[in-house]
Amino acid sequence: MSNIKGIQQIGFKQSQEGTTYFHTYNPVEGSQTAYRIAEANEKEIEEAVQLASKASAEFANMGSAKRAQFLETIADEMQVVTDQIVQVYCEESGLPEGRANGELNRTLGQLRKYAAQARSGRIGIPRIDTADVNRQPQAKPDLRKVGVPLGPVVVFGASNFPLAYSTAGGDTASAFAAGCPVIVKGHPLHAATGETVASAIDRAAQKTGMPDGVFSHLQGQGHDLGQKLTQHEQVKAVGFTGSHAGGRALMEMASKRAEPIPVFAEMGSINPVVFLPSALHNRGQYWAEQYAASITLGVGQFCTNPGLMLAVKGEELDGFKKSLLQNLSATSTACMIHPKLAENYNKNRQFLSDVPGVEVLLYSVEGETPVQLNCIQGEDFLRQRSAQTEVFGPSSLLVECQSQEELLSVIDHLEGQLTGSIIYESKDESDLALVQEHLGRRVGRLIHNGVPTGVEVCDAMHHGGPYPASTDARFGAVGGDAVDRWLRPLSYQNCPNDLLPAALQNENPLNLLRLVDGEYTHNAIPPNA
Amino acid sequence: MSNIKGIQQIGFKQSQEGTTYFHTYNPVEGSQTAYRIAEANEKEIEEAVQLASKASAEFANMGSAKRAQFLETIADEMQVVTDQIVQVYCEESGLPEGRANGELNRTLGQLRKYAAQARSGRIGIPRIDTADVNRQPQAKPDLRKVGVPLGPVVVFGASNFPLAYSTAGGDTASAFAAGCPVIVKGHPLHAATGETVASAIDRAAQKTGMPDGVFSHLQGQGHDLGQKLTQHEQVKAVGFTGSHAGGRALMEMASKRAEPIPVFAEMGSINPVVFLPSALHNRGQYWAEQYAASITLGVGQFCTNPGLMLAVKGEELDGFKKSLLQNLSATSTACMIHPKLAENYNKNRQFLSDVPGVEVLLYSVEGETPVQLNCIQGEDFLRQRSAQTEVFGPSSLLVECQSQEELLSVIDHLEGQLTGSIIYESKDESDLALVQEHLGRRVGRLIHNGVPTGVEVCDAMHHGGPYPASTDARFGAVGGDAVDRWLRPLSYQNCPNDLLPAALQNENPLNLLRLVDGEYTHNAIPPNA
Repeated sequence: MSNIKGIQQIGFKQSQEGTTYFHTYNPVEGSQTAYRIAEANEKEIEEAVQLASKASAEFANMGSAKRAQFLETIADEMQVVTDQIVQVYCEESGLPEGRANGELNRTLGQLRKYAAQARSGRIGIPRIDTADVNRQPQAKPDLRKVGVPLGPVVVFGASNFPLAYSTAGGDTASAFAAGCPVIVKGHPLHAATGETVASAIDRAAQKTGMPDGVFSHLQGQGHDLGQKLTQHEQVKAVGFTGSHAGGRALMEMASKRAEPIPVFAEMGSINPVVFLPSALHNRGQYWAEQYAASITLGVGQFCTNPGLMLAVKGEELDGFKKSLLQNLSATSTACMIHPKLAENYNKNRQFLSDVPGVEVLLYSVEGETPVQLNCIQGEDFLRQRSAQTEVFGPSSLLVECQSQEELLSVIDHLEGQLTGSIIYESKDESDLALVQEHLGRRVGRLIHNGVPTGVEVCDAMHHGGPYPASTDARFGAVGGDAVDRWLRPLSYQNCPNDLLPAALQNENPLNLLRLVDGEYTHNAIPPNA
Repeated sequence: MSNIKGIQQIGFKQSQEGTTYFHTYNPVEGSQTAYRIAEANEKEIEEAVQLASKASAEFANMGSAKRAQFLETIADEMQVVTDQIVQVYCEESGLPEGRANGELNRTLGQLRKYAAQARSGRIGIPRIDTADVNRQPQAKPDLRKVGVPLGPVVVFGASNFPLAYSTAGGDTASAFAAGCPVIVKGHPLHAATGETVASAIDRAAQKTGMPDGVFSHLQGQGHDLGQKLTQHEQVKAVGFTGSHAGGRALMEMASKRAEPIPVFAEMGSINPVVFLPSALHNRGQYWAEQYAASITLGVGQFCTNPGLMLAVKGEELDGFKKSLLQNLSATSTACMIHPKLAENYNKNRQFLSDVPGVEVLLYSVEGETPVQLNCIQGEDFLRQRSAQTEVFGPSSLLVECQSQEELLSVIDHLEGQLTGSIIYESKDESDLALVQEHLGRRVGRLIHNGVPTGVEVCDAMHHGGPYPASTDARFGAVGGDAVDRWLRPLSYQNCPNDLLPAALQNENPLNLLRLVDGEYTHNAIPPNA
């Protein structure tokens, strides 16, 4: 569309000083788009970071109600340009309009949820321990603790979620809710979509009186931009969704800085699914349909794609396999988001097929992207670490185990995962608790009788998992707790009430739940407590 | 004492397979103690880690009430051998009996606080989002999230706190509360004190039916033991209190592992103190007494020692300086914990004295350890990064600023700190809020009209700070939140009620505060919610 300028958004300013350009690609048409994007140059990078750093104090101090308004206005401004966003999104990703609309709604929902959280002040829970001047041998001081923003955060957009995990995605929204300025490194595969969203954020920032520099959006194709941002001394944390190689490199880079900073990287997963015999016996066909759909959903381009299925050998498994093959071979897939992703998919498919013991059960070229189903014996899987390679696309590997014991060994042998699913008939089955316990040690989310694709956005969702699913198993980018990643605690000792942040004042003016002398309460604290 | 064996505690077993030995040192007598300590060999290290790994599942699943009993029994068992602990502590550290008793009481208090926290189940706050099967376009699943232990944790004892930050200190107690087995690397300067405490932990573990391997205590002088533990693939996190070089090295080592793990290192600080003119004018003498005492407390061997004082030049400051000099020169110090610490102290004192612009105001050799007070002009301080060197011992540097503006620049120029203190007369002073804001960006705890030494153990205490005070500003080793360091979230999606951990069951059998559909409540959830 004509109003894509291919520029950097640097605070409130649009900038185009770089002299290197790239085009995005339309995978449905098989040709590049009309969107010519300038790469950010060094001066622009420096300017964005310095502005963010300068904006930090004002943004941190303005109170969470104003930040909530900013987040809501971003959602409103994005909604105004829905048609444009969806059009550019579809052009640059080849994903269907339904998916674009769904992802847009999710993204708006996320922004509004974080706004509500900021507005309610429910960010961490303030801790207060009141003084006891008569305590022996020495007086007990008054101590009050609350989270304060870390400072400028860099967010890396994800290739497979142009909206929900990109420019105005969960990392950006949660960092704003925490009070941190954000510099987004737009994903080069959907740079124009990113620009459209970035403009909406910019309009929202200006309308709601945010400080200049609270948001910048920089474009670049190679690793250089991301490295410069991660290494910049004014940057205080990084959020990343993408490949293992990328996340790992950023994490190591960040730990070598003069001042190390946290990198929260979500790096993908093969999402094991355990089928207990009862389920295959009673509803094998149903689960084959469900899983064929989950494996091929969105052309398999989800980090929650079920790339690994485990079951004990037997008639039940044979029936399920047959049914799964039928369903998968009847599925017609669309193209992948970008030829690069298709190329990686084919490379990794081939790599996995070549792992000793792996047998190709299905290689279907019904649609534009081939669908593949492989299988391997449990004992071979245990011997071949490379059988755990993630094949990002519509592919899955079935591990056939000799026994329940071997199945548990296979689970114990797995690398860290975002999710693990268990499919069964009755909650009273003898093996169920055991499988849940073993699987629970390897994953961030345990799914009962469902598919891993589909990440509900809510407080109780954990979207993360033991390494290599995430760089730090303790954090995820989805849900209310994602805000805590961007905060550090600050304790106030014997601080006069007037000088405390509102969250910690005696009167509890924000009406927060607080932990006061070991008890959770909304009550105010008497002035001379 | 005769019952120090100089052995490793490996699970329930006492082991002495190493063939290298070292003695601890009595700094008061100036000679080595009778305690000959064996260093752990490779086989013993491996055994301890494997046992811890094996114990992980049972310890995680046993329920927090039983872990609470374990923690309380550790305190009880330590109390039984109070006399022995205090005697060996004083021998190995040269610290007075009063300090030993005080630190022991603090340590017992910490253990009992973490026990109470575990018993109440108040560890993280469980999140529950109930299902909505009628939601369109798709049903909303039931999601419930709770913290699960990371697995074996390695704790490095601190040289300057043989009890409160060592074998049964805050890192160990909080990891037990979280459900993680602990392997302590005993600090070599007080290895026999460590053994005495380790025996008490072992007795408590056996009495309360803990799994073998829930605790091990390994001894070693060099870096080798700590490196092997940090790099072992079964180790899932590290707690450390000590030097910057040590903490940094462990952090980088941990980030290069095949599976990176978090290292929570608290690495010291120079704890800036800002004196506003009003305070120096009205109560200069009082504050000089307070600070002379704080600088020399415990021969300055605290990470909260006030190593930096800032004030604007003038008559008030001159009077304060004079008074501080008088008080400091009248203070007679004891010996340091170990000749190595004294040697480092003297080296760093000399290094700081040689920084351009630094002037030695006092070098007092009244006691066994020299007391030193230096001063520097604000403009020189701003030019010399090395003026921020931590001198671990009874020493402080006074920065004389030309103006309030320069003082703020000096604050902005500071590295991350554990604490920052502000001394003033009235909360209505014009500069106070500004100083608090600037100082608040650099520190983990802001102290009003007090001294930084003395760390109250409570939920609202944050003992940590921006790098280099800690490797991760978001966490500290003191207070209830220290437990969260050792947990990762696990979400359960559509899990039958019986199969959920107690914290997440509908009936709320542990009577926990929970975040249910966005509201904090103790209420049970109706069965078909």
